[in-house]
Amino acid sequence: MRVFSLGALDHWRRSPVSKFREVSAITRMSKLTLVSSNKCFGGEQRVYSHESSEVNCTMKFGVFLPSDALDGKKLPVFYWLSGLTCTEQNFITKAGGQRLGAKFNFIIVNPDTSPRGCNIEGEDDSYDFGSGAGFYVDSTTDKWKKNYRMYSYITKELPALVNENFPSIPDRIGISGHSMGGHGALISALKNPGMFRSVSAFAPISHPTKCAWGKKCFGGYLGSDENVWREYDATELVKSYNGPPLDILVDQGAADNFLKEGQLLPERLMESCAESKMPCVMRMQEGYDHSYFFVSTFMEDHFAHHAKFLNN
Amino acid sequence: MRVFSLGALDHWRRSPVSKFREVSAITRMSKLTLVSSNKCFGGEQRVYSHESSEVNCTMKFGVFLPSDALDGKKLPVFYWLSGLTCTEQNFITKAGGQRLGAKFNFIIVNPDTSPRGCNIEGEDDSYDFGSGAGFYVDSTTDKWKKNYRMYSYITKELPALVNENFPSIPDRIGISGHSMGGHGALISALKNPGMFRSVSAFAPISHPTKCAWGKKCFGGYLGSDENVWREYDATELVKSYNGPPLDILVDQGAADNFLKEGQLLPERLMESCAESKMPCVMRMQEGYDHSYFFVSTFMEDHFAHHAKFLNN
Repeated sequence: MRVFSLGALDHWRRSPVSKFREVSAITRMSKLTLVSSNKCFGGEQRVYSHESSEVNCTMKFGVFLPSDALDGKKLPVFYWLSGLTCTEQNFITKAGGQRLGAKFNFIIVNPDTSPRGCNIEGEDDSYDFGSGAGFYVDSTTDKWKKNYRMYSYITKELPALVNENFPSIPDRIGISGHSMGGHGALISALKNPGMFRSVSAFAPISHPTKCAWGKKCFGGYLGSDENVWREYDATELVKSYNGPPLDILVDQGAADNFLKEGQLLPERLMESCAESKMPCVMRMQEGYDHSYFFVSTFMEDHFAHHAKFLNN
Repeated sequence: MRVFSLGALDHWRRSPVSKFREVSAITRMSKLTLVSSNKCFGGEQRVYSHESSEVNCTMKFGVFLPSDALDGKKLPVFYWLSGLTCTEQNFITKAGGQRLGAKFNFIIVNPDTSPRGCNIEGEDDSYDFGSGAGFYVDSTTDKWKKNYRMYSYITKELPALVNENFPSIPDRIGISGHSMGGHGALISALKNPGMFRSVSAFAPISHPTKCAWGKKCFGGYLGSDENVWREYDATELVKSYNGPPLDILVDQGAADNFLKEGQLLPERLMESCAESKMPCVMRMQEGYDHSYFFVSTFMEDHFAHHAKFLNN
């Protein structure tokens, strides 16, 4: 920051720049194309696109690089998964994440929620199936299995790309998300013991095998065998988890219409955690709904929760 | 907030509620129709619509009520004016204002940027004239003068509505804005000595009589007499200001393309302030552009600036 003196619109003399600050470096990044970059809270909010080998289409994701990351310092990574209908933009514009990424000194990575433009019949017909509704599973059905592999995308391809292109600390990563993305965060941590040091969720779809959204997507992407469905259900996965201790933080709005409709079923997740001695704090937040007004309110608490594990 | 215990999805016992918390009170509010309400940072982010007598159409504005306001405690009001193309939604979703309204205990009011749907020929043809581009002036030309009276709307009708319907402290109000809205904030404070205790702006259109955006809008709304234009130009108004001390804070992104194009001309405002002994701090922020990524980064500094005047 420079306090302006009259007529002086010249800029600061530039300091020596690291390769992460160089625009020219962007074009050399492995497989990534820069879509946008905006300075924000001393760092940069960027969007990249790339050709995904897992989901066989062009994918976009957001990455917030705090100032230290731009200078090449290795930092923990906070992964964020969004919910039904979202792209990578919802978190970027509405969550207030950049302030927190700067404050806690985390790189933030937030992918789109599904493949796009795959020319699959009906892919754009519903808000809760197909585009915008990848549900973070690897499809096994003929119609969807070529593209709808969001589980492998977020747990394999994307972290590898991030570690290759940004100054991340690969063994200090946490994951969180909202609604369908809360489900995605929980199953990613539960299915990959030791990969994520920390996990949290906002209003997650906690027991998708037993709610309408989950049944529709699991039936379409995974077929009719409910034994396969259970491999992507956090409430079921908690029962067989065998890995380093996880300490789950969940916030849930008490005025969330989808809670009332039985789409989220957090009480089943809590019961499962209690039976399995899995530490889980669920906070019912009176008056809050399912929106990013709710998410943004408690985001700082989640960053602080992740910091307990990512900074130690 | 309630820490969840197993199976207990019941809510907190409700405390006695003030009239500002009662949904039933909303329908009794003078002239206002509630469009939406979302709990956020302990308060409520609401949008209202009403039939405006100044601009002769339905107008919308956002209001953030901190928890204390919902309990009926009288609070200062921070007015926010947005820029070209914006509605009341841009600030609500992108600025991170609710966290700051809660932290500083200000009511936040942010109107739409122009009349809408007035059936004036050409009103939707340009991004920088007509809808979304009211420019905070009172039109005098036959075609626009019935509706394009945003100056009187934001300095007379809207504050009166706010003071009538919300627990505001009428003599503790501040005003800020972005780009065209920064211009609006500056001229509102300069033309109404004593009305606003505090004023600030992000990348304001500082000298609209000398930039392309300003010439287009002033010509269209005010006609060809440039003496009339000067009544809505902050750089000109500073020279004749005669009222209680104003202490202006301006942030400007050094990488702002509209700065480079000569649309903003902050150096002319600074020169005028220096000649007129008007305190003004302008901060050139290296690397920042014209977006809400820039605005959100420095919003807390602006709230702190306003708090110096609104809380004393």
